[in-house]
This record gives sequence, structure tokens and C-alpha cells, in this order.
Amino acid sequence: MSNNYGPDYVRAIAPYQAGKPIAEVAREFGLDEEAIVKLASNENPFGVPASAVQAMNAAAAELGRYPDAAGFDLKAALSQRYDVPADWITLGNGSNDILEIAAHAFVERGQSVVYSQFSFAVYALATQGIGARHIVVPARNHGHDLAAMLAAIEADTRLVFIANPNNPTGTFIPAAEITAFLDKVPAHVVVVLDEAYNEFLAAENQFESAEWVKKYPNLMVSRTFSKAYGLAGLRVGFAIAQPALTDLMNRIRQPFNVNSLAQAAAIAALNDKEFLQKSAANNTAGYQQFVAAFEQLGLEYVPSYGNFVLVKVGSDAGAGARVNLALLKQGVIVRPVGNYGLPEWLRISIGLPQENAVLIAALTKALAE
Amino acid sequence: MSNNYGPDYVRAIAPYQAGKPIAEVAREFGLDEEAIVKLASNENPFGVPASAVQAMNAAAAELGRYPDAAGFDLKAALSQRYDVPADWITLGNGSNDILEIAAHAFVERGQSVVYSQFSFAVYALATQGIGARHIVVPARNHGHDLAAMLAAIEADTRLVFIANPNNPTGTFIPAAEITAFLDKVPAHVVVVLDEAYNEFLAAENQFESAEWVKKYPNLMVSRTFSKAYGLAGLRVGFAIAQPALTDLMNRIRQPFNVNSLAQAAAIAALNDKEFLQKSAANNTAGYQQFVAAFEQLGLEYVPSYGNFVLVKVGSDAGAGARVNLALLKQGVIVRPVGNYGLPEWLRISIGLPQENAVLIAALTKALAE
Repeated sequence: MSNNYGPDYVRAIAPYQAGKPIAEVAREFGLDEEAIVKLASNENPFGVPASAVQAMNAAAAELGRYPDAAGFDLKAALSQRYDVPADWITLGNGSNDILEIAAHAFVERGQSVVYSQFSFAVYALATQGIGARHIVVPARNHGHDLAAMLAAIEADTRLVFIANPNNPTGTFIPAAEITAFLDKVPAHVVVVLDEAYNEFLAAENQFESAEWVKKYPNLMVSRTFSKAYGLAGLRVGFAIAQPALTDLMNRIRQPFNVNSLAQAAAIAALNDKEFLQKSAANNTAGYQQFVAAFEQLGLEYVPSYGNFVLVKVGSDAGAGARVNLALLKQGVIVRPVGNYGLPEWLRISIGLPQENAVLIAALTKALAE
Repeated sequence: MSNNYGPDYVRAIAPYQAGKPIAEVAREFGLDEEAIVKLASNENPFGVPASAVQAMNAAAAELGRYPDAAGFDLKAALSQRYDVPADWITLGNGSNDILEIAAHAFVERGQSVVYSQFSFAVYALATQGIGARHIVVPARNHGHDLAAMLAAIEADTRLVFIANPNNPTGTFIPAAEITAFLDKVPAHVVVVLDEAYNEFLAAENQFESAEWVKKYPNLMVSRTFSKAYGLAGLRVGFAIAQPALTDLMNRIRQPFNVNSLAQAAAIAALNDKEFLQKSAANNTAGYQQFVAAFEQLGLEYVPSYGNFVLVKVGSDAGAGARVNLALLKQGVIVRPVGNYGLPEWLRISIGLPQENAVLIAALTKALAE
């Protein structure tokens, strides 16, 4: 749309493409909502933990009040869990908000931001939204090439986004590679380490990145309650960094960015180890279920460390869109990733065993068409 | 705090000062939470409507899913209520989000934003957050001087904020004055008309500003569910504007900015006319209760059209802070407005009759000290 309002760089933004909601697919394809399987948005197939619902019910009476702008109770819980002072924590309306606040807080128009090809779409949006310059570093094996990212940093670079595991490809960077990168990155460049999928990692791949924050004043670790914790609909994420960074984040953060129920539910979810274990175990089993099916179907996939798998459904640039449409007609929602420059691929979230089975049957049928 | 991160204009931001939460006052002054009266944040003293709680309970099962990024159902309800197409509506994480998005979408660094002295603090924050230039127009009788604001618009002005009724002063601008302003403002300047307190206006002062949007392509009307609708803790506001503006807003808006429960609750609250009428009636009665007390105490106040009153509690620059502390010690939370350049005044939200009575007694005692 042409108009004379707003900066050029805002008019150039292509808005984020969300996963299609179940209700929208039902409307569009004339399907029954109950029959639709959604494996499109890397959500937790168990939904919200019962412990979080209880906490929300207790908090509901106070919903006429503004949320606690300081997030006192949630920050206290996170402070204890990650062994950092409460003022090292910034709360976000999902980690999307953390990523946007970081771009606004650390970068000004014309300066540059470094991120990887095939990494989370919000890095490009946050960069574009402030009129900053994109330095997109080619991926290696669909994942981050940290050596190339280090070499790509320029004099005016103020921010580097690293996703680990990465979305939408599912790739993983071992701890030693990240600390080697952090040792070499210039001190005035802020590194946002986005660990939205951290809780799905196997024990041998887990590392306590919050501890690195104590060593690296320019490191910010970003986490979310939207994935393993099952609170996507409530919107809560957080960042851990030293006060010099957190102080700037808080100047940009909207004071009431995290709603009251999200704060209450996040505290409950953080303490619900059983739910987290159940979610991780289901994810491991579902990943094996998908991988076995993809191998049987002869489909290439990227080994994933998240709660989703990137799978190649054809060799032509129309493959992803074509198979996606065939799946939608069968009531299965997955995520086409043409907007990531991966038009032959689909990103499929890991669901419950029966949801995964529906996807596998629908995919088999779609590929046979 | 001195550091070498971030743009100068971000380091210069003084973060928003929220009303003290009840729990914080209880901690700080060793008081029982149950005994505290909070009349600090212009919240609805009836809390959240029961209809909204029912709607939230129905929506809670789907909280593991991301919210509908398009806000289909809520936009449909608002579209019907305001007789505008759904794509004229932008949803916000409270109207605070709408104001921030507007600044980012329409103004770039170095361009100017016009707003009134003594108007809502977020206008200054949103302007500062993008490194834009502030043009603050002196107030007239604590309210907007629209003639002076029109004259203050410069060649690089891209945005004007108007609050009606205004917060924190409670002043009101009649419809004819606003349309006269809109008739003269340059076409490339976006006017955000912030009507957060609209629903408290008496019938004779109500006008359908959404209708003006059809006439003025550069007008955006902002509303909130945080005040009369009682949903402050859930975070939902919205803007109505023509698609040329809405399109840019949506490029800056975070896709999942409004959580699922807020969307569900807002639809219910929008249709709960009884709750709205009860809230407005309570507000009218409470205003009379306050005004009678202030007159008896010989206190100057600004006639208010909102759900709060600005009252002058002394003649020296320490008066607001001093009386505020005396009220806090008695377990009554109000809002000091020294940060607005009104250090002799306090802003007091209208509560339930018994809450107002507690405030009046505590204020009487505080002034006698």
C-alpha cells in the first residue's frame, strides 16, 4: 500500500507470518475444528500445565489492577532458579518482546545487526523495525557459522543474535563453540543468545548459559515460557544480563508488558518439574516417530534439537507450498518456510503420538498425490 | 549508570513510574495487604467483570497455543461495535502498546512529535524511545491548548498526541474543538487521539470519534480495556484508523502482542453493557464524594472527566511527596505527579464509596499533621 506516512524502513517491513490458527483453517477449508491437528507453531502439545491454571485462577480476582510493572515475584523465582540477582532479569511479553526491546535498546538507525541465514524471523523484523542494517551470515549445514559471524562483525555492529537451538532448522551449537565466540567478540557488541528451545535439549547438551552472563558483560540470554512450559497463549519470556544491559532494556520496555496471569502462571510452571519432564520425554519420543517416518518416506530432514523438525518435501521451489496445501485440506497445519528461503521444506512441530501419526498419514498421502 | 551500550537517546530515558503495587507497599511499610486501599492507577474498583472471567475460563484450555495474531474474533466484535471494517483496527498490549507502535511506525529519529504539557507520560517515553524531538506545548488550565499545538507543528512533525479526557489532569476537549483542529492539521501529520477514559464521560459529552476516522485519513483513535472495562491486568487496547495507517502499525506490532485470555475477555467485556453502566455510575457518585470533601478541606482540584481527580495538597514543591508518604503510612496508595511537573498535586483514582471514604479520612489526617 502506498502512502506518505512513516519512515521508509517501516514501509519496507514484511510482517511476521504466524502459523494459521485452527479456527482460520476451519473457516477457510470448511473443516471441523475438532478434527484439525496443528503442528505449526512449536507449541507444547500438552497445553498449559494444570499448576499454571491453578495459579491463574488464584490471580484472576486482581485482574482489574495493572500488573506488577517490576515483576517482583516472578523475578524472585527466576533469580533463585538461575542464581543471578533479580535486577539482572528483564521480563518480556514473550521472548519476541525481549528481542525487539534489545534491538531498540542497543542499536540505532544505520548501525548494523549480525544474524544467521535461516535463523528466527524476528531477528530480521527487529532489525528492520529500527532502520538498522542487516548483516546476514550464510548458514553452514542449516545452522550458525560462528566463525563467519565473528568475521562479519563491522565497526558499527552493535548486536548479534544467536539462536540455540535454532528455529526453524533445529540446529544446535555446542557450549565450547559459543564461549569461544564470546571470548573473541568485541566488548561493545551485545550478543543475544536466544534459547527458546533450551528445555528440550538432552542432558548431555544442557549447559547453564546464565553462568556465562557473570563472565561476559555483553551477553544477554533470552528464554521463553511459550515452548516447554506450555504458556504460549499467555506471553511471557525473560532475559538474563548484567545490570548495564538490563538498565537499558528497562528504559525501552513497556512498564506493563507482562500481564498479571502470565506472571502468576510462569512462577507455577517454573516450579512444575514434572510437567517439564513429561514434555521433554514426549518430545524425544515424537522426534523418533517423525524421523522413522521420514526415513521410510525417503525424505531429507535436518537433525533437530528443538520440538520440531525441518523436512524437505520435494526438490522444486513449489514443493513446500504444494504439500502444505495438501496437508491443510486434510486438516493438518504445519509451517511452510518459503519466507525463510527454504521453499522445498516444511517445519513440523512435534505433537502427541496420535497427532504425529495423523501428520505422518496425511504427509504420506500428500506426497503420493 | 554509565556504560558504552545503546544510543544516547535510550540512555537518557527516565523509565515510567508505575503506581506502587499493594504487595510492595505492604512490604515497605509493614502493612497488611487486606487493609490497603489503592487509588493510584485509575483502575476499575469493581475489578474484572464476571462475564470476562467466564470467557477466560472457556479460553484457558487453549493457552498452550499462541494467541491469534490476527485477533479475528475481537476485531470482528470491535468492527461491529464501531461500524468500521476489521482491517481498520490494530490491537495492542494495552493502549500503551498502541502509543509506542504509533511512534515507531510514523516517526523516525530526529523528526518531531507534538504533545501537551501535563499529558500522559507515555507520549514523552515513546518519543524519547525512538530518538525523536519533543515539542511540548504549554497547557492551558491544566489541559490541551489545541490552537497552540496547531501552531507548534513544524515541518518535520510527524505525530501529535492528544489525550481526551487527559491523564493526569482529567481535562476534557469538546468535539467541536477537536474537529476544528483536525480540519487544519497538515495531512501528513498523524494525530493519535487517546481516549482511554472515554467511557466515563457523561452522555452529553460523548461523541463517536470512530466516525471521524472515516473523514480524516491521518486520525487514529486509541482506546483501552484497562479502565471502564476493568481489564488492566490482562493488557488489551486498540486503535481505529484507515488502512494506510493500520498497515504501518501492523508492520511494527509484535505478532502475538495481545494474549489469548485478553482477546477472549475483551469480547465479553465489550458486550457487558451492565458492567460498564455500573462502573460509570459508581464513578459519577465517587467524583461527587471527592469533590465535596476537597471543598470542605479547602483543596483546589481540577474538574475531572476521568475516573480520577487531580488535587492540590499544599503550596510548596514538597507537598505532594509529603502527603503521599503520610497516606502510604496509613495504607492508602495514590499517585504523586512530581514527574509531571506537578509536585504540589496528587492524582487520586475514584474507588468504591468505602474506599473513597478511607482516602478522605486519611487525607484529612495527613493534612492536619
